[in-house]
Amino acid sequence: MSDEPADELMRATYQALCKHGYADVTMADIAAESEMSKSSIHYHYESKHDLLTTFLDDLLASFTARLDDVEGETPREHLSALVETVLDPSSDEPNREFRTAVLEMKAQGPYDEAFRSRLEEFDRTLRSHVSDVLAAGVEDGTFRHDLDVERTADFFVTVFGGAQTRSVAVGRPVEQTRETLERYVETNVVAADVGVEGGQ
Amino acid sequence: MSDEPADELMRATYQALCKHGYADVTMADIAAESEMSKSSIHYHYESKHDLLTTFLDDLLASFTARLDDVEGETPREHLSALVETVLDPSSDEPNREFRTAVLEMKAQGPYDEAFRSRLEEFDRTLRSHVSDVLAAGVEDGTFRHDLDVERTADFFVTVFGGAQTRSVAVGRPVEQTRETLERYVETNVVAADVGVEGGQ
Repeated sequence: MSDEPADELMRATYQALCKHGYADVTMADIAAESEMSKSSIHYHYESKHDLLTTFLDDLLASFTARLDDVEGETPREHLSALVETVLDPSSDEPNREFRTAVLEMKAQGPYDEAFRSRLEEFDRTLRSHVSDVLAAGVEDGTFRHDLDVERTADFFVTVFGGAQTRSVAVGRPVEQTRETLERYVETNVVAADVGVEGGQ
Repeated sequence: MSDEPADELMRATYQALCKHGYADVTMADIAAESEMSKSSIHYHYESKHDLLTTFLDDLLASFTARLDDVEGETPREHLSALVETVLDPSSDEPNREFRTAVLEMKAQGPYDEAFRSRLEEFDRTLRSHVSDVLAAGVEDGTFRHDLDVERTADFFVTVFGGAQTRSVAVGRPVEQTRETLERYVETNVVAADVGVEGGQ
């Protein structure tokens, strides 16, 4: 199988998840969004679960590539760009259905070992990207020398998860969290002699 | 119908949700955990959706009562007790299944108006309890006079949601978030002349 049909199938899976949600989506729904027949999909993937696991792998690869592409002149700008990538306000609406499907898949973590290992990998990837930027800022002196890099990165990942969950559950815009995190960076991350006002 | 069988049915619904999860639970599963027959449950509740909506109402009432019962000698202690109630580390394991079911229900927010309105009420209730305590601390001078009470309360609710989502999805203990929030209170909420070290 060349990469082409695989990519096309991943796009079809994305569309079907947006339309039907994780719990209700079927192989037939995915086939309907794709140029492949249901039997041809079944030839490559034994079950919906197999296909969705591959989809999560694919999603993780593109998420990692997207985070790798984020850059900034300084650690501070790099961190802001990272936060903006994860909490992209413009994606509140178009991606709403997809985020909902992702939240449904997160709720499968305890039941599903294959999903669980991918969810852990998303969590780790995000955390390591944040901690690399934080460490770079400590290194060049723009972030507090005594910053607990690992704990702070972990906190960011918790805040990202909360913003995404609330966006799905109660429609709260992720934008508000982005602004609050910006202030958090100002008061708790940036070194006192570098911040605009040196914190509050 | 007296309160007794209703309470018993809510307990049975809780048990059935823990065992089967939201997506898979059936009226028969709930009946199996209860002393009521399936037909007697159907007499009171037209559908599983009706019963689960009532269950969410019941859950919201007991959650509100639990938050109302939280107290502390000072706003600072009150706030810590509130955080501890929401992020109760002892509940990581026993409540894991239930939290998972709640996360599944959160993922129904966009599709289900009845669930959505209850989820919004949970969000509002939590936020208002946090903001009341923050306002009391600003009032008595133990918290920063320039604290943005509403924004900070909103941030706490986001962090709670993130801790709960990560606990379900990747098994990360909520305890770590509780500790980080304690530090956040120390550095960003408590007035500079009140904190142990006056913040970092």
